[in-house]
Amino acid sequence: MAPAEPNAIPFRPKGEIPYFEEEREGWKGYIEWEKHPEKKKQVEEVLKQYDFPDPPEFQFVPLPKTNPILTGERFKQYHYATGLGHLVDISWQYVLKEKAADMTHVLQFPYNGEPPRSKSAGVHHPCREKNALSNQELRYIQDRLVSTEITRNEDFFVRNHGGVPEIDPEKYYLEIEGLVKNPQRLTLKDLQDESKFPRQTNVVSLQCSGTRRLEQIHQYPGDGDELINAPWAEGAIGAARWTGVSLKKVIKYCGGLKDDAMHIELFGADTYFKKGKVYNYVVSVPWRKVKINEVLLAWEMNGEPLPKLHGFPLRAVVFGYIGARSCKWLYKIRGIKDPSEAPVQRKEYLYYTPQIGKQNALYSNGFSIQDMPVSSAIISPKDMDVITHDGKVKLKGWAYSGGGHWPIRVEVSPDGGAIWYEVPTENMSTKYYYAWRLWEIELPLDPEGWLEFCVRTWDSALNTQPTYVRSAWNWDLHVTSSCHRIKIYSINRSKPATAARLKALEENGLSITPITKPLALELETDEQYQASMGEQHGREPLE
Amino acid sequence: MAPAEPNAIPFRPKGEIPYFEEEREGWKGYIEWEKHPEKKKQVEEVLKQYDFPDPPEFQFVPLPKTNPILTGERFKQYHYATGLGHLVDISWQYVLKEKAADMTHVLQFPYNGEPPRSKSAGVHHPCREKNALSNQELRYIQDRLVSTEITRNEDFFVRNHGGVPEIDPEKYYLEIEGLVKNPQRLTLKDLQDESKFPRQTNVVSLQCSGTRRLEQIHQYPGDGDELINAPWAEGAIGAARWTGVSLKKVIKYCGGLKDDAMHIELFGADTYFKKGKVYNYVVSVPWRKVKINEVLLAWEMNGEPLPKLHGFPLRAVVFGYIGARSCKWLYKIRGIKDPSEAPVQRKEYLYYTPQIGKQNALYSNGFSIQDMPVSSAIISPKDMDVITHDGKVKLKGWAYSGGGHWPIRVEVSPDGGAIWYEVPTENMSTKYYYAWRLWEIELPLDPEGWLEFCVRTWDSALNTQPTYVRSAWNWDLHVTSSCHRIKIYSINRSKPATAARLKALEENGLSITPITKPLALELETDEQYQASMGEQHGREPLE
Repeated sequence: MAPAEPNAIPFRPKGEIPYFEEEREGWKGYIEWEKHPEKKKQVEEVLKQYDFPDPPEFQFVPLPKTNPILTGERFKQYHYATGLGHLVDISWQYVLKEKAADMTHVLQFPYNGEPPRSKSAGVHHPCREKNALSNQELRYIQDRLVSTEITRNEDFFVRNHGGVPEIDPEKYYLEIEGLVKNPQRLTLKDLQDESKFPRQTNVVSLQCSGTRRLEQIHQYPGDGDELINAPWAEGAIGAARWTGVSLKKVIKYCGGLKDDAMHIELFGADTYFKKGKVYNYVVSVPWRKVKINEVLLAWEMNGEPLPKLHGFPLRAVVFGYIGARSCKWLYKIRGIKDPSEAPVQRKEYLYYTPQIGKQNALYSNGFSIQDMPVSSAIISPKDMDVITHDGKVKLKGWAYSGGGHWPIRVEVSPDGGAIWYEVPTENMSTKYYYAWRLWEIELPLDPEGWLEFCVRTWDSALNTQPTYVRSAWNWDLHVTSSCHRIKIYSINRSKPATAARLKALEENGLSITPITKPLALELETDEQYQASMGEQHGREPLE
Repeated sequence: MAPAEPNAIPFRPKGEIPYFEEEREGWKGYIEWEKHPEKKKQVEEVLKQYDFPDPPEFQFVPLPKTNPILTGERFKQYHYATGLGHLVDISWQYVLKEKAADMTHVLQFPYNGEPPRSKSAGVHHPCREKNALSNQELRYIQDRLVSTEITRNEDFFVRNHGGVPEIDPEKYYLEIEGLVKNPQRLTLKDLQDESKFPRQTNVVSLQCSGTRRLEQIHQYPGDGDELINAPWAEGAIGAARWTGVSLKKVIKYCGGLKDDAMHIELFGADTYFKKGKVYNYVVSVPWRKVKINEVLLAWEMNGEPLPKLHGFPLRAVVFGYIGARSCKWLYKIRGIKDPSEAPVQRKEYLYYTPQIGKQNALYSNGFSIQDMPVSSAIISPKDMDVITHDGKVKLKGWAYSGGGHWPIRVEVSPDGGAIWYEVPTENMSTKYYYAWRLWEIELPLDPEGWLEFCVRTWDSALNTQPTYVRSAWNWDLHVTSSCHRIKIYSINRSKPATAARLKALEENGLSITPITKPLALELETDEQYQASMGEQHGREPLE
């Protein structure tokens, strides 16, 4: 399915477009900005020459019904202007090659995508239009995210900040420097040499802090940077079996840290634009985290080499943390004293209180997100579904907690959070220290009409989720950890009046859905009406 | 401003289009269906020949941004098919002539319109787009509904069920028949003859039971008949000074009722289509209500003859009741024993419990709406406004209660309903037994960010409003009487951090709005960040 490119804005070159030679043989699309202040300066000067398009307004108005939802014109033009335009197409080709055909492309470039999403108010994935698919196909698509406890590579969400670098694994090497005793340069073969490094495999969930951001956007818009705050639904999470070497072992191989180094900085080969400047993608993790073997340098994802979109040939996988720390296309590691001063670490993925916004946000008054809190989602049914049932409804979803905690209990409510039903333990998937659990439950359901289903999870530290989106809304719309709520319309066939109506509809070749389509039949006969009025002693009191 | 006609569906005649001769000289657009079962039958047969367009889906998807919002293709085609097509254009010409140019046309035909509405999620009135109007113009438009305690005729909402009949007042007469002792035929001159009938003038609010229906639609879609359930905002209410004669006096003039008549049936000259059949617009009111002079037969609205759209030359005005009983183009009155069996009275304007819907709704399990409950609305600011202030914000709105009750207290909350502030009595407009009160309040406001303002009113019987839309949602989306809630984004200039940010924006020629547009400035300098980190002893614990 070829994606549309809605509202593409033509790029108009001004002056000469710079050309940056790739510095390493076999490393295409990689520019080492961090070593070259003069190149950074050059880009800054070039960017100043252009009036780039404003970010699209995607919060105060309904999201486009296109797929991709957002196209990233601004980011495409940053790349065109600085001689990196070829990365736009290269990256997209990898999406078409490596990802499932029906992914929801949340942002086309830099690529952000998730498996087919639940419908939320005003948001329809084109593949979810009922007339295009059978109910069985539809159900499969809806449930796919939670159909296997290990997410298939082609379904795993992607959240990139720049174009995809293409690195020849034979030419690949990793530099370890900074506050380590013996700086090293290691090839992929070195890292995979089990005589040097013990191999480690872990089932680990990665989660974007933007997961379920749509819920915040729909209720309270926030900062509108379409790259940072892309409109994710419930699919920016997954679990994979990652294989590689513990970062701790690599640091030990370099003789350990020195000079009170407390953090490890991770450098990605992708190019990252922020407020008119250019960087590589750089973040850091505390040594404390590395020391307990919770940071893996991985080259395999579910038994296969990393896909290009996921950081081939080497990436970090930081267990229990925000996905943003799991640096892809990892080319350098540095021992440092304080957390990285790079913009991704210092200026993004900040969690503010609800009274902080455009009027007063600072980098220092936001909390820097690392461990992810307990969270969960109902994947089936989906928001605004009309459900015809006989007094029971099946719900499926995921539950996750970061920081080495695991979900111990999932509870669902059919009434917005007053009554809770516990998911039976046998209906929850394997416990892992670092991965989600899938769950399903058959929920007893008597009432009809619009109901609010919600889910909350308790983790192994007995943390549970805030009640409402409002309870945890924050300006940058991160970490939507409040109870996931969906509205469903319940039609209970075990009620005689409902059974009779459904039968009458069937006899007249009519459907109950869409419920908003007015009923063509009379609701009752004159005789039935008169009989009922008689029983009620008329519309008004008699005296 | 010529309205667009989005998605007009061409009407394709099948067979011969019938022609119904107007029965009375000087009564254009009036067909007496109720006396002619053979004509009704003929229309029924004609309507069966056509596949009329489905009603538009306007609930599960965002409303069109066009004005008119809905065009009424289905109803236009009913009229084309039955030889009444000329009424479509005639009616629209009266809209252009009699109504303010910036009315929001909720439904073009049959005409439903209200003064410029507040913006609600996904709904923008074209006239409300900020770039088209100065702030002053905008403020005037927003507040107009509550700028005068008596609504100007051109701003008064219109809720019609059919085309506009054009009746020559010289040829007009009213028939009074049924269970009255001496049936009469009265001309307009007779009714206006003060030697026959004392003249009565009252300030009375009329309110459509659909007022604020948008709130129900946005949260929980219901029956999608675009005529019955048009997507009204807060403007389907107003107050006018009506002059005419009490219906009681007219009945008395006919010698009073006989044979235990308990209700009075009111016949309107407009043509009304429902489920493949045709009727005149017919409703009824209890004699009990008439007897206390709460039903006026009015020929003047605010000192002027009734506008054509409002029922010229004579209409009923039923005090404190749902607007639907205030029958326009009144041509006949009948004494009857039970409430009218006409579809408007028996099959519409029913109020269901939340578990009733398409699957089980009957005419007899809905409550027939007569008296309107206590309700209110915030008109300024409007939903999703960004408000920059110095610790105080002004709110304006309306408050109303039907059934002869009047608003005694209005309370507003800046936090969704935990803390309430009372509107000072001196900030409320005149008390009337049968009309709304306007109110305004300067609300102390400290917090910043997204807040939920809401209003509730207490009436003279100490009734107040349900808390949430959900508390009172009903399948036909009538009587949205729950506390009116709006979201606003608060920027408090009296906070030093905010004042500093606003100053920095001003110095850089930037605006704080739209808040979703990312800030082009750095949030703080490296030095400020480092100083703050020093004070916080870094991002992580030291031990």
